[in-house]
Amino acid sequence: MKSNEIETRWWGWGDVRKTYPIEDMPAYVEYLRKRLDVRIEQLRVPDPDIEKIELRKSRLKSKTIEKIGEIVGEKNFSLEKRDRLYHSMGKSYRDLLRARLGQIPNPPDAVIFPGSEQEIQRILELAESERLGVVPFCGGSSVVGGVEPLDRDGLSGSITVDLRRMDRVIFVDKVSRRARFEAGIWGPELEGELARHGLYLGHGPESFLFSGLGGWIASRGAGRQSTGYGKIEDMTEAVRMVTPRGLIDTLDVPASATGPDLVQVICGSEGTLGIITEATMKVRLLPKVYDYRGLIFKEFEGGVEAVREMLQSGVVPELIRISDSEESALGMRLRRPSRNPAKEKATVFALEALAKLGYSFESGSYAVIGCEGDKRETSVRMKKVIGICRKNGAIPLGSSAGREWYDHRYDHPYLRDIMFGWGVMTDTLETATTWDNIMNVYEKVRKAIADALSDYDSKSIVTCHLSHSYKTGSSLYFIFLGKIAKGREVEQWEHIKRKAGEAILSCGATISHHHGIGYEHVPWFKEEYGEQGMKLLCSLKEALDPAGIMNPGKLGL
Amino acid sequence: MKSNEIETRWWGWGDVRKTYPIEDMPAYVEYLRKRLDVRIEQLRVPDPDIEKIELRKSRLKSKTIEKIGEIVGEKNFSLEKRDRLYHSMGKSYRDLLRARLGQIPNPPDAVIFPGSEQEIQRILELAESERLGVVPFCGGSSVVGGVEPLDRDGLSGSITVDLRRMDRVIFVDKVSRRARFEAGIWGPELEGELARHGLYLGHGPESFLFSGLGGWIASRGAGRQSTGYGKIEDMTEAVRMVTPRGLIDTLDVPASATGPDLVQVICGSEGTLGIITEATMKVRLLPKVYDYRGLIFKEFEGGVEAVREMLQSGVVPELIRISDSEESALGMRLRRPSRNPAKEKATVFALEALAKLGYSFESGSYAVIGCEGDKRETSVRMKKVIGICRKNGAIPLGSSAGREWYDHRYDHPYLRDIMFGWGVMTDTLETATTWDNIMNVYEKVRKAIADALSDYDSKSIVTCHLSHSYKTGSSLYFIFLGKIAKGREVEQWEHIKRKAGEAILSCGATISHHHGIGYEHVPWFKEEYGEQGMKLLCSLKEALDPAGIMNPGKLGL
Repeated sequence: MKSNEIETRWWGWGDVRKTYPIEDMPAYVEYLRKRLDVRIEQLRVPDPDIEKIELRKSRLKSKTIEKIGEIVGEKNFSLEKRDRLYHSMGKSYRDLLRARLGQIPNPPDAVIFPGSEQEIQRILELAESERLGVVPFCGGSSVVGGVEPLDRDGLSGSITVDLRRMDRVIFVDKVSRRARFEAGIWGPELEGELARHGLYLGHGPESFLFSGLGGWIASRGAGRQSTGYGKIEDMTEAVRMVTPRGLIDTLDVPASATGPDLVQVICGSEGTLGIITEATMKVRLLPKVYDYRGLIFKEFEGGVEAVREMLQSGVVPELIRISDSEESALGMRLRRPSRNPAKEKATVFALEALAKLGYSFESGSYAVIGCEGDKRETSVRMKKVIGICRKNGAIPLGSSAGREWYDHRYDHPYLRDIMFGWGVMTDTLETATTWDNIMNVYEKVRKAIADALSDYDSKSIVTCHLSHSYKTGSSLYFIFLGKIAKGREVEQWEHIKRKAGEAILSCGATISHHHGIGYEHVPWFKEEYGEQGMKLLCSLKEALDPAGIMNPGKLGL
Repeated sequence: MKSNEIETRWWGWGDVRKTYPIEDMPAYVEYLRKRLDVRIEQLRVPDPDIEKIELRKSRLKSKTIEKIGEIVGEKNFSLEKRDRLYHSMGKSYRDLLRARLGQIPNPPDAVIFPGSEQEIQRILELAESERLGVVPFCGGSSVVGGVEPLDRDGLSGSITVDLRRMDRVIFVDKVSRRARFEAGIWGPELEGELARHGLYLGHGPESFLFSGLGGWIASRGAGRQSTGYGKIEDMTEAVRMVTPRGLIDTLDVPASATGPDLVQVICGSEGTLGIITEATMKVRLLPKVYDYRGLIFKEFEGGVEAVREMLQSGVVPELIRISDSEESALGMRLRRPSRNPAKEKATVFALEALAKLGYSFESGSYAVIGCEGDKRETSVRMKKVIGICRKNGAIPLGSSAGREWYDHRYDHPYLRDIMFGWGVMTDTLETATTWDNIMNVYEKVRKAIADALSDYDSKSIVTCHLSHSYKTGSSLYFIFLGKIAKGREVEQWEHIKRKAGEAILSCGATISHHHGIGYEHVPWFKEEYGEQGMKLLCSLKEALDPAGIMNPGKLGL
């Protein structure tokens, strides 16, 4: 079964057959009870019932529906509740909150599954003549409101164009290490196809199993291993986009000096200018080794300093993830005690030994570092990486700790769904700044989030890790937990988001390193992008989508 | 003396006190005589006389001149012949040809040297109200017509804004390895300032001594060491540009997911949207070692294959330059025989020894490879690089050969000026394509140039080298020589340029990898960029420069 054929939750994350094994982690529940003053009476509450959701009826005229059928065929569009519901929002905290509250303000009036670029062109023509908003949809995993069909004055309805049928491999060129795909291909199929040729893209966002190429490019995403492999915009060599005013098809060359780089105009355009239909990606040899290690630093600053040294000295692992003490402590509560008593005893003994050396998961910094590649080169590099970590106060914990993280790297979004049932909010946000400003942003943003939660009478756990690093700086990724303010759920979230956004911008950091803008980040995006930047963006919109049908409201357009 | 205070040639390249030591290279002259059927009667002809140049009078009204004086001060603008002549064109073959023919169709009506961004803003306001074209000017080394003040309907004149006074260092942040400069700083001062902090940008185009930051960014240039360090757009972290409609000032962060990347819209904008005033550059530690080596491959293909292997296996030297046999042979004629007879004898002996092994500069491929960095890392890397070269049929010739190239890397443009006097045309052009297409482009473009020269009854020498390489492909750099068609000089050049451009585009390669577009490349640029791309570009222009005053005619705008 292809990944895009798996049945997924409309009210939560991922595969309906999968969940998070919270029953195995009693320490976590206890921890949250104590830290957040929450009552957790049952581990799992029943799933929301689709029958209880009231969805606005499709506003499409029957003639429009007929025309859609003529373009894509009767089987390839849907007016059904489940399809419309699934496409009515993304996967942000606020989205899932509203889904659970039964608040679905913006379902698309139809979901269309085109099979070709020609069909997309005809859909855009139809949408323009019928004044319908058009939302491009790949995996729908946006956490910033990027796929919600917003209304706009002058539009009479909205359609979502789901690209899942357009998931072909167009070519694989092993000589030039590049491969071209249709934009609707999802992560597992894309890497699967490449692996058959011994190749690898290396873009592994947390959403990897449920997201795809077009969405990655449209939102300027980053995979977990972006420290080594770069963000999606660094991997994109050429791209093709259908706009309401015609096709943009960039030349497939490694570099050029031919005006502003069109690839970098399309990356991050979030569906507001057109629908990405194809892209040529820079690929590499499939790694022989995925070497992931756990380490503990005495403190977060030591880990930060180690990463800066790695990047600036050219000793670059594919993945780095340096957790602050709060995240290290939280992670410890999610540790699965081994079923083998001897093994478990050994772990406890090791933790005690670390404690005697002054290293603890309560005050220290847990880190995961991964090198991927061929056996020899990876081993040499990992040795150098660990040397830099040691120099900055780390003790290596070996590869089973690293492997544990790697094996479960796609699991955590499932936990969020369970916590909803406990009345616990959890959301993430991320930024990036230069090295000289990292600790400042770290302190200010954490404080802003904690204060904002406190404004809603909630205690808080605010954690952070450093990941996605560069020679000149790094991303910082924040995860926070608090008590959901009953009856004021959305308002509470908006307050926190606003305070965090203000803190980020006041420090000169970016409102997003890889989540994108959607509509949730628009106020801070406008400030960051500047008046002239917005003018420039509006002019692009006006040129390529004068009727304003493309993904209304996103990027503030 | 600062580099921008050196007196430079208006009719040719570089420092008036410097030239190419052609007297030391009798073999070269002999070679050209034979290969091109040219008569070379005297090695040097007299320099053109500025007195013989007739320059159109400045078209500025006295009131406008007064206003300019009010903005920048009386000393900081010029209406003088020498200044206007110097700013009337760049340094393309066609430019120097016209300078020698006394054809200066587009001198600016005034040259202005602003001292601040505020002054630039006021100049743009004045230009808009007086309908004057504005040409931003940094070093003026464009080889594509990027700095020539073209007229346009509706404009009453043109002014050139030379940024040489705006050359300050704004900050150096060693922690984050970045530094911010005003855009008017030239190469030697920029690297000089960084070197004082033990830092290095590593952008070394052939024009390095006579070009600067704003021009590099505006034209998406590449330095010689771009294989290791990237092109200028990869080094630019943030940029500030004054447009006729306000300021764009991008956030100084290592990466973000906040809409289309404004830095990459400004890179390559060639002054058509505004004037770049500042940029933050990603910098690195000043290398301790500059290890350059000469090698010879049995054939060009072996060198190409070696470079592909280096890049794709991550063993990346900062500089690669693999000459085809024609370029290797030509280079040999430019070899300076050693004044030390023993040394010269050793060289000749070595050449004979190589010949016995089947390696020759007539049929083989001379290569220069450079690694820069700290001593140990560079030495390890160079060993691996040479290993890959050997595997692909190369014999290393040692570091004195590499050093020879490095020491003379800025000299060759001076030779072009001398060859004008011999009736020999020489020009260069460059492109980039993916590895699978490299040899195809190589063959087709060489043939197109040779055929085009032959159309003007000229024999030809068409050489090529591979440089500026990537995992997915490489740039190819062509140098060609022929006999100038007396009386049809410009027409001859246009014919060759057209044929080469057509060949490049028909192979799916780019019209420029690092020279840019200016106005000489416009027809092929439009084709490459596509109808929608041009629409997009026009919309940017309309938004930021609605009166169309910025660098008229460049990028086809």
